[in-house]
Amino acid sequence: MEMVVNDEFYMSLALDMAERAQGQTGINPVVGCVIVKNGALVGLGTHLQRGSGHAEVHAVGMAGKNAEGSSVYVTLEPCSHFGKTPPCCDLLVEAQVKRVIIACEDPNPQVAGTGIERLRQNGIEVKVGVLRDRAIRQNEKFVKYITTGTPYVTIKTASTLDGKIATDTGDSKWISNEEARRQVHSLRHRHQAIMVGIGTVQADDPALTTRHDEVDGLQPIRIVVDSKLSLSPEARIFSDCASPVIVLTTEQADPQKVKLLRDLGAAVLACGSGPSVDLGFALKELGRMEIGSILVEGGGTLNGSLLKERLADRIIMYLAPMIVGGKAAPVNFNFEGVHRIADAVTLDSLEIEQIGNNISVTGIPVWPKG
Amino acid sequence: MEMVVNDEFYMSLALDMAERAQGQTGINPVVGCVIVKNGALVGLGTHLQRGSGHAEVHAVGMAGKNAEGSSVYVTLEPCSHFGKTPPCCDLLVEAQVKRVIIACEDPNPQVAGTGIERLRQNGIEVKVGVLRDRAIRQNEKFVKYITTGTPYVTIKTASTLDGKIATDTGDSKWISNEEARRQVHSLRHRHQAIMVGIGTVQADDPALTTRHDEVDGLQPIRIVVDSKLSLSPEARIFSDCASPVIVLTTEQADPQKVKLLRDLGAAVLACGSGPSVDLGFALKELGRMEIGSILVEGGGTLNGSLLKERLADRIIMYLAPMIVGGKAAPVNFNFEGVHRIADAVTLDSLEIEQIGNNISVTGIPVWPKG
Repeated sequence: MEMVVNDEFYMSLALDMAERAQGQTGINPVVGCVIVKNGALVGLGTHLQRGSGHAEVHAVGMAGKNAEGSSVYVTLEPCSHFGKTPPCCDLLVEAQVKRVIIACEDPNPQVAGTGIERLRQNGIEVKVGVLRDRAIRQNEKFVKYITTGTPYVTIKTASTLDGKIATDTGDSKWISNEEARRQVHSLRHRHQAIMVGIGTVQADDPALTTRHDEVDGLQPIRIVVDSKLSLSPEARIFSDCASPVIVLTTEQADPQKVKLLRDLGAAVLACGSGPSVDLGFALKELGRMEIGSILVEGGGTLNGSLLKERLADRIIMYLAPMIVGGKAAPVNFNFEGVHRIADAVTLDSLEIEQIGNNISVTGIPVWPKG
Repeated sequence: MEMVVNDEFYMSLALDMAERAQGQTGINPVVGCVIVKNGALVGLGTHLQRGSGHAEVHAVGMAGKNAEGSSVYVTLEPCSHFGKTPPCCDLLVEAQVKRVIIACEDPNPQVAGTGIERLRQNGIEVKVGVLRDRAIRQNEKFVKYITTGTPYVTIKTASTLDGKIATDTGDSKWISNEEARRQVHSLRHRHQAIMVGIGTVQADDPALTTRHDEVDGLQPIRIVVDSKLSLSPEARIFSDCASPVIVLTTEQADPQKVKLLRDLGAAVLACGSGPSVDLGFALKELGRMEIGSILVEGGGTLNGSLLKERLADRIIMYLAPMIVGGKAAPVNFNFEGVHRIADAVTLDSLEIEQIGNNISVTGIPVWPKG
């Protein structure tokens, strides 16, 4: 806990406020804003959902005439263009704030720096980069989507220390401990969609909903990768109304089965000519549907395919302190593999956490050259 | 670093001194002794090697007449019986020390408590249990050997996050980072023997020696598990004189090949009637040869067999932040496996350490019931 009152002290609150809105802003970033005047907190704001007011609007509204001569802490560069709302820069200029402290620049290369420029042109003192790393990490999903138009893909696995996600008979309850499983529901909460392979649906018939112990959860869209369109209309994901279902298949799919699933409310996307779903194409389609982030919950075949096609942006592995063995036991990443250690996919920006007797290992995949 | 001067302050030094002698005392424990009088350190001692003076002998010798009325900190209960040296209890009584502080009781059930009893009968104040857990962990190899007559078995693996110890072409250089590889040489230093499977010798022709950057290393005995006795007389372990070589095979082994390897200086042990080496039998034989600790450095088949036969006492896994995939890539534990998660081998007393971008996971295997 920071005890020194300085720019980081207020920026960290702005970041904390933004963090609480993760998962509810769609393809928009999370943003927090704190306004301070004469040593006193006078305004707080967070962007709540797409199309509604930006963080600065809420904070300036709360500050009222105290905004004049104030310092404004905002986690992301204020916008200078008309989007779904008027530009925040103009709002700050009109409110006659004195200083604006920004954690990180707008990641959209088309507008990056223009907000900072506009503020400075209007005589406002601007400081950029306070807690920048934390701010960038906080909006990594938004950054990926805004710069590529395709969703940020997080692969989550839960395995034994020998890389198995179940025994050779399919038993997997429970590999992870309770706290790790709780974290997975928080990961679902923070993503716009969950993706699983048809094998997982057939083996476990999961609800794929967010279930927290004490509070309500945001319910992500459920995506099933189903090359042969063998998904049962009896699957649990069709029997609740928790969130929409999207089925990814190929042009070879049986049109009658497509109609059957569409009648159940599912969107069915033909991704390539088959026989397997073209995952790169699928992600572009999902991006066009304004899905900005996907949590992939395996199994090993889907994880392996995404790895092989270099379509993962973050990998989160939960490791349980056990060894099950067995050549036929399913593994966390099932793919052809590489022949040289130098060609392995490595994890960068490693974050390691001990969760009781489980371990979480998180990192950004770095693809081999060539 | 403890800054409070109390019993733990001096006992931790005694433990630190003992720790520096790990690997050089054979089947004997490591023991440290610190003597303090009137607030001043007056004696230090460590057991250096089997057959030579115990820690108390060195410390009392250094303290001289200052031992009278002193406090003696010793990491293991002083012996009360004639072994290779006279009993340390008698020495402390004769020296007229005032207090004896002991970290842990003698783990040998036949003599546990007798030293404490003897001291108390002679009017010496005795306190037991100061930093006990650390003392027990420090001598876990000794405890196993003294209570069972078989060596303490540490399995060390170095794998990717998907449990592979090489790619499908056998490339394994380098999975672990430099610091993890340095730690492995320190593990070798601390064990009386290294054990590998014939597959590892044929694939890598390793030296299996201890190599430190700055200091000399203790060279453990090298043990090769070779059911078919296919070890080449050209193997590197025969061309140096770093330490003895023991080859474990079966009664089916070709007598001429046995003679050939014996002529090279190796001990060749027939462990069971075959076709595979009877590992339980082998450990008993190695125990009889006064080998009290073995570091197993795989590969997966040997690791898997030891796990299946419940012959491991500690597992140390180095995990590198990479994923290589490949069904044919060798795994860290290659065995038939269990069918239910409840039957998995789990790791207890977990110790997790981040070593740069590698992770070490250490624990004591707990076998499923039944």
